[in-house]
Amino acid sequence: MKATIERATLLRALSHVQSVVERRNTIPILSNVLIDAQPQGTIRLMATDLDLQIDETIAAAVDQAGATTVSAHTLFDIARKLPEGAQVELSAAEGRLTIVAGRARFQLATLPRDDFPVIAEGELPTQFELPAETLKAIIDKTRFAISTEETRYYLNGIFLHVADDGGPAGGQAVLKAAATDGHRLARVTVARPEGAEAMPDVIVPRKCVGELRKLLDEIDGSVGVSLSPSKIRFDLGQAILTSKLIDGTFPDYSRVIPTANDKLLKLDPKSFMEGVDRVSTIATEKTRAVKMAVDRDKITLSVTSPENGTAAEEVPGDYAALPLEIGFNSRYLLDILHQIEGDSVEVHLADAAAPTLIRENDKSPALYVLMPMRV
Amino acid sequence: MKATIERATLLRALSHVQSVVERRNTIPILSNVLIDAQPQGTIRLMATDLDLQIDETIAAAVDQAGATTVSAHTLFDIARKLPEGAQVELSAAEGRLTIVAGRARFQLATLPRDDFPVIAEGELPTQFELPAETLKAIIDKTRFAISTEETRYYLNGIFLHVADDGGPAGGQAVLKAAATDGHRLARVTVARPEGAEAMPDVIVPRKCVGELRKLLDEIDGSVGVSLSPSKIRFDLGQAILTSKLIDGTFPDYSRVIPTANDKLLKLDPKSFMEGVDRVSTIATEKTRAVKMAVDRDKITLSVTSPENGTAAEEVPGDYAALPLEIGFNSRYLLDILHQIEGDSVEVHLADAAAPTLIRENDKSPALYVLMPMRV
Repeated sequence: MKATIERATLLRALSHVQSVVERRNTIPILSNVLIDAQPQGTIRLMATDLDLQIDETIAAAVDQAGATTVSAHTLFDIARKLPEGAQVELSAAEGRLTIVAGRARFQLATLPRDDFPVIAEGELPTQFELPAETLKAIIDKTRFAISTEETRYYLNGIFLHVADDGGPAGGQAVLKAAATDGHRLARVTVARPEGAEAMPDVIVPRKCVGELRKLLDEIDGSVGVSLSPSKIRFDLGQAILTSKLIDGTFPDYSRVIPTANDKLLKLDPKSFMEGVDRVSTIATEKTRAVKMAVDRDKITLSVTSPENGTAAEEVPGDYAALPLEIGFNSRYLLDILHQIEGDSVEVHLADAAAPTLIRENDKSPALYVLMPMRV
Repeated sequence: MKATIERATLLRALSHVQSVVERRNTIPILSNVLIDAQPQGTIRLMATDLDLQIDETIAAAVDQAGATTVSAHTLFDIARKLPEGAQVELSAAEGRLTIVAGRARFQLATLPRDDFPVIAEGELPTQFELPAETLKAIIDKTRFAISTEETRYYLNGIFLHVADDGGPAGGQAVLKAAATDGHRLARVTVARPEGAEAMPDVIVPRKCVGELRKLLDEIDGSVGVSLSPSKIRFDLGQAILTSKLIDGTFPDYSRVIPTANDKLLKLDPKSFMEGVDRVSTIATEKTRAVKMAVDRDKITLSVTSPENGTAAEEVPGDYAALPLEIGFNSRYLLDILHQIEGDSVEVHLADAAAPTLIRENDKSPALYVLMPMRV
């Protein structure tokens, strides 16, 4: 194998690839990136953690086709430190990859390409396209609610499923994305893309979501999505991300979404968020609760901490129902408010113990449910 | 106590003050900042860790003089989150400090001002002024070499002493600053300021150095330095930093500075630094050694790592003495090269086992000694 490649091109691809590679690996080859120089003048870089795989193809001048694997983090660090504009020559021979750029020369230990594990995609019968912007919005508005509890593995991802929505969109075919950790739920509804009719319900793991989101920052246009009940594949132009899906059953979350919360509070999300952020300054790790005392057009946020003292702030809002006091985990509340883009947010309350519905308005694709805390 | 203060003024002062306060304290009042509203229309903020004390005075509208203490980090966090341009009203009564700004209101638990420990400065007979720029240079060019080994407490700071320099400055009275961890030594020599004639030798602790350096970023003009054998005080306009000095004897470091290293290597510091940085990419935590093979006008940097492989780079340089191979800790070498500002650096070598002298040239105020490593 022998190929020459622009440092900037190599660096950009490696930055994606090394991100999939775990820092610590018991299986040595999982620390490595597969470098495959192809006769048609491209290099394919692949990395995997056995659950998630990235496969990126970049342009290169290939003198001699061939493939090998070297430490992904080391190669990335080298590419990072090479001078801007350098041409990087890669050549593999006798168990070594030689990297030459300018006056610098590196030799890295390799492992055979045949030992590199490739995820078998199998058949991916469901195939559709989503605009990159839509996919970004789906991820941003749900992923904060993904559970980190490993024992509840079936909550460690974003649940995707198609449905006929009898709701705001009025009997339309939709694609729904949901995430929850039992304390809060986030759901985004978008029009069902063509090709997703027979899509199985799937749970996309957190790490795949994170890597996909990073790649989307560099993408315009559309992303190809292909999936089976056990695998999902995202085509992002030069990069392809393939992930195993979480083998579990996502709970029937629709039962958690309140439909009869009749007390409507409308607020300016910015002053609401800033108020919650300020009063929660004195909250400690243990007591994250912020209390909302909701009275006719008068909302008082407060926090009481046995150690630190008290904080209170009045925020403007519209409210015409019966007065109510309710507590929320301030961090969870802020996570949700961060996702509200408009200049108004609706908080649908029932009572101090009931799940609360938060959304921009009845047209907004995203909807949040937050469990209250006793205060 | 009752006073009103601009949020920006309060925030800036608190950012200095809270930085002195340790995150964890067994003595509760050490977590607090003393707030002293003075009748002449100023507020004095003080914080201490019993070794280092900061005392900052800021303008305020004082309605009622008085003093109290509250959690420094909490007050800082509150000030940070208050809206820009807010007026902050502080009032103390019945064991509480009330903070009101806009629609937000905080009440914090206080501890009595009389319990707040103030460092007794005692007499500080030596007094002089140093331009802030000089003090910055002294710190920047030495502090990286301060030892972090707690058992060698006498190396945990910058050693300051006056001397008659028979060296480059030619018999002039000088002030020297030195730091070492046994592997490397950094020394800066500046003209002795007026008033420092009878100055005792002192060791300024690392934490004081760090806080002083941060404050210097906001200072032009001169800094007043006052000291005794046990205390040092820096007057920085509105802030005063007082520190205990390290009670120990700094080793006679001058014996470590080689005077007969006859092999002179001259390099471009930028390409030297970049070369060292690049080849050390493959060095592991354990093997940080970079080898320099110095031959007539040909310098080859290399690193060999049993795990990762090898790296080599040739860097341009002037050298006319006998060929030599020598190894250095790459991180220590980079620390030194980061401080070289000109377009040339001198490396004075003796042999592979002898301390090496590094400096910009024989006029430069800073000088570095680096112990080699076996490679």
